[in-house]
Amino acid sequence: MPENKDSEEWQRLRSEPGPSLKIFNVRFDHMRNPRNGKTERMTVLESPDAANVVARNQEGQILFVRQYRFGIGRYTLELPGGMVEPGEPQEAAVRRELREETGVVSDRWTYLGKIPSNPVFQDSYIYHWLAEDVRLGEAPQLDDGEEIFLEWLSPETVEAKLRAGHFEHPHTVNALLLYFNRAS
Amino acid sequence: MPENKDSEEWQRLRSEPGPSLKIFNVRFDHMRNPRNGKTERMTVLESPDAANVVARNQEGQILFVRQYRFGIGRYTLELPGGMVEPGEPQEAAVRRELREETGVVSDRWTYLGKIPSNPVFQDSYIYHWLAEDVRLGEAPQLDDGEEIFLEWLSPETVEAKLRAGHFEHPHTVNALLLYFNRAS
Repeated sequence: MPENKDSEEWQRLRSEPGPSLKIFNVRFDHMRNPRNGKTERMTVLESPDAANVVARNQEGQILFVRQYRFGIGRYTLELPGGMVEPGEPQEAAVRRELREETGVVSDRWTYLGKIPSNPVFQDSYIYHWLAEDVRLGEAPQLDDGEEIFLEWLSPETVEAKLRAGHFEHPHTVNALLLYFNRAS
Repeated sequence: MPENKDSEEWQRLRSEPGPSLKIFNVRFDHMRNPRNGKTERMTVLESPDAANVVARNQEGQILFVRQYRFGIGRYTLELPGGMVEPGEPQEAAVRRELREETGVVSDRWTYLGKIPSNPVFQDSYIYHWLAEDVRLGEAPQLDDGEEIFLEWLSPETVEAKLRAGHFEHPHTVNALLLYFNRAS
């Protein structure tokens, strides 16, 4: 691969800001293709990193949130999670998101891994965490634009749904894949 | 869940077009939250559906493409794929994408499943296909903005990379998960 040959790398000739989209800053990168020397304008959506959590209680059940997703216009079943705030350490962010979104707390946190949100056009990553022995702490603190229902599922149900392709969020799938591979 | 209670559903009060972003049409939906009656403006990125392919040759090797991804500014290893054109049937699209991007063709196609690209803010889905007994057909026909290197990996290598979380594209992960669960 061309990592060591500077002349064959993609070159960013210039970069310009695009319109603001509430959840994203848009950037246009003018990229020179090393294959043919041609320059194309590529869209990059800048946003903070995010994190999601496999939250397991003492009985082994895993916590899911059911919420309306505006992209597809339907309710989905997902792992809890959210965006990391500027300057906030990963582990603090994921503890805060779990507590605010579900009211659930834990003292046992383990990092599972990460993946680009979508490497094609997003600059952000999603970090996956495991929280064990979780318990109900306080009432959830939802944003005005959130409505969240909690569901606890057995690990057998979760693994069956994962293998059958029933989960409708790619980041939930990746976190569960890493969790079950770690556990097995 | 509120599917059967109209009064508790999220309501789209109005919708307005946003700026064009080359790969997306932006739409802003003003959504009324059934939990608190408040209205929030949500960003939806509209785009065509896409498809990717687990392409396996007669020796069992699986085809990957290494390409520069502008979102994260690095090369990734992914399954081949691309966007479905307007009015194009899924299977025709995936045959065309595989042929154009890699020069590889197949007569044995099987649908593996689908997942929302990102249900939070995208309206599109990614469809996963299996192509068996693939062979080199013709030279790839790349777009001006593409530069693609082919790599054939053994199924053992692919499964190990999948379980270790080495793949950096969530849609590649989901396709491989469905493929290996089908095969096992």
